[in-house]
Amino acid sequence: MEKISKSFLKDSYFITELNLCTIRLVNNCKFPWIILIPKRKKITDIFQLNKKDQNLLMEEIVYISKKMKKIFNAFNINVEKIGNIVSQLHIHIIARSKKDSSWPLSVWVVKKKNIQRKV
Amino acid sequence: MEKISKSFLKDSYFITELNLCTIRLVNNCKFPWIILIPKRKKITDIFQLNKKDQNLLMEEIVYISKKMKKIFNAFNINVEKIGNIVSQLHIHIIARSKKDSSWPLSVWVVKKKNIQRKV
Repeated sequence: MEKISKSFLKDSYFITELNLCTIRLVNNCKFPWIILIPKRKKITDIFQLNKKDQNLLMEEIVYISKKMKKIFNAFNINVEKIGNIVSQLHIHIIARSKKDSSWPLSVWVVKKKNIQRKV
Repeated sequence: MEKISKSFLKDSYFITELNLCTIRLVNNCKFPWIILIPKRKKITDIFQLNKKDQNLLMEEIVYISKKMKKIFNAFNINVEKIGNIVSQLHIHIIARSKKDSSWPLSVWVVKKKNIQRKV
């Protein structure tokens, strides 16, 4: 089994193990945000997984997405494989609300706040 | 078969049809950027597809990702299901280079340019 990247250990909390992935909650107060980390060595891309694991990954993405949709009454579910900074393969699953701070943009976009004048 | 959203017709170009998805090239000069649009009616989320189609989607994501990696000699492949603005299910596959304008951030983040002083 692959070790979890230090970056994930620092920025997220363990929830559970599924067949393929370790499931962790990202420490982010703005969005309900889960990452799925396949327990396979030296994998940075989905296409490097074997076919069986690819299907398992899809199954676990669907499983977690449904849970997130229900638990957080999400308007939409974002599913993203980025990995430009931390290369160990991980999938972000984020429950989006029309009232969240980046809506309708990606969670990676921080909207500028209109600071209200005090006088 | 589901009609393609007008937004996609406006902002992207038809490439080909795979078994599940229509493949289109996004009109964006900054990144090689493909979208996969499953040809199923009234689907906004991956988990609404049936199991067979979920696996087919994974297969087509892998197929296109490998092509993008090779053709564009990509350093990394980003795979994203967002759909906050256009709800018809579509998957973004983006070939990333360390030299692209948003690296290492998400393509949704536009970095501020440092404008060089002329005098």
